[in-house]
Amino acid sequence: MAESPRRSAALRAGTVYLVGAGPGDPGLLTLRGAEVLAAATVVYHDYLVTDPILRRAAHARLVDVGKVGHGPQTTQDAIERALVQEARAGECVVRLKGGDPFVFGRGTEEALALADAGVPFEIVPGVSSAFAVPAAAGIPVTARGIASSVAVMTGHSVAGPPPAAPVADTVVVLMGVANAAAVRDRLLQSGMKPATPAAVIQRGTCPDERVVTCRLDELPEVVIREGLTAPSILVVGEAVRLRERLALRVAARDGVRVAAGVHD
Amino acid sequence: MAESPRRSAALRAGTVYLVGAGPGDPGLLTLRGAEVLAAATVVYHDYLVTDPILRRAAHARLVDVGKVGHGPQTTQDAIERALVQEARAGECVVRLKGGDPFVFGRGTEEALALADAGVPFEIVPGVSSAFAVPAAAGIPVTARGIASSVAVMTGHSVAGPPPAAPVADTVVVLMGVANAAAVRDRLLQSGMKPATPAAVIQRGTCPDERVVTCRLDELPEVVIREGLTAPSILVVGEAVRLRERLALRVAARDGVRVAAGVHD
Repeated sequence: MAESPRRSAALRAGTVYLVGAGPGDPGLLTLRGAEVLAAATVVYHDYLVTDPILRRAAHARLVDVGKVGHGPQTTQDAIERALVQEARAGECVVRLKGGDPFVFGRGTEEALALADAGVPFEIVPGVSSAFAVPAAAGIPVTARGIASSVAVMTGHSVAGPPPAAPVADTVVVLMGVANAAAVRDRLLQSGMKPATPAAVIQRGTCPDERVVTCRLDELPEVVIREGLTAPSILVVGEAVRLRERLALRVAARDGVRVAAGVHD
Repeated sequence: MAESPRRSAALRAGTVYLVGAGPGDPGLLTLRGAEVLAAATVVYHDYLVTDPILRRAAHARLVDVGKVGHGPQTTQDAIERALVQEARAGECVVRLKGGDPFVFGRGTEEALALADAGVPFEIVPGVSSAFAVPAAAGIPVTARGIASSVAVMTGHSVAGPPPAAPVADTVVVLMGVANAAAVRDRLLQSGMKPATPAAVIQRGTCPDERVVTCRLDELPEVVIREGLTAPSILVVGEAVRLRERLALRVAARDGVRVAAGVHD
């Protein structure tokens, strides 16, 4: 049980730090993420990263390479080339992504590009939106006797031909609202029942979060009727019902809350 | 894009904070988690939580309610009753769990018990071991063109009758080594090929981490031959192959590392 901690590694020039910023709430950044941002000289960030987190990079040049919807502002190739060039120029480079860098979001491609170019890098995992955004909305993705497995996919993957949707008790779909009809169809094909409880969570963990629940087969209509837009996460499975027991207490007593706040 | 942060919520006596400690590396605790631990008067923690993280609870009474293997040291009912009693006695209570409190680990049951008892609580999500432990071993759970979905289950769930194993490009199994043979059988039944790459990661993100790779059908034999024990995580899927491109660089240049260190 007792163990010596690893030494805190000093930041090195010429290195790229692939950092997960978490789901949006600035309290959900990791300690190592905060340390790396404070020492960075340049930060390449996505549009999902919130301002309180960017402000931690007090000494860095900020480069917004955010992708809005399907239209990349900066191509993936250009991002990968820029990271390599900045590191070779001696910068202390942070690549800052919403959620976790290796859970969708193309962090894997960037890590491989850095490895292939011989540029040293460090992965700093983040709190994944796939789990924390439902949690903040009062929906645990697993629950004994209700959900003993959880799968995560994106709405983009259903736009093309199969792979089929994953099969699990709870399915979380990142970037799902634009393709809500295709997501519903794939989940029904993979065996989920039309009446399975579902939720759409827009801007989860942020002050303007919205949560709408419905049945799986109603998802596309609800997205349109409620005007739900990206960034949103879909959650499908019996665990969605737990929100009634957990999150209704928010209104009743302000007693359930997810981590929030600016921490200095 | 611009948004005002939520105010940092002061900690309240009589409240339970369900906090995810992350996978082990103390740098992967969240800022809110660190803030909550610093203010806690009592901390109920699992055996997986590492000492550098516990030391952040400088003013708290520490209660070890860890479960080792299948034998609970403290029953789940007793833990839930204690959390309610401590809160009612006016303590500032932290329930500290490895990984994320709502990704297995029975945090959901504790939240429901608190809600039903009318005790105010806050969920502080953590970095899930399911994603961060593979990342630290050079295995991204998703990768464009290789893995467009990931599922998480536990080794305990295969011990009983079905539910069947989840289906996804990458499957992560928490608490899997004790039931490695059953896990392998379920994953083969659910359609994975015997030659699918697999990895066993023992004490991931910690200084004494061990990583062993093999084929899915060899998993139980490898666990025995290598003497791999809990806490360990199994990862199965083509994405495991990426470790060769990402993590072999560790030895070559000490250039790939996961977040680590004590951060004060």
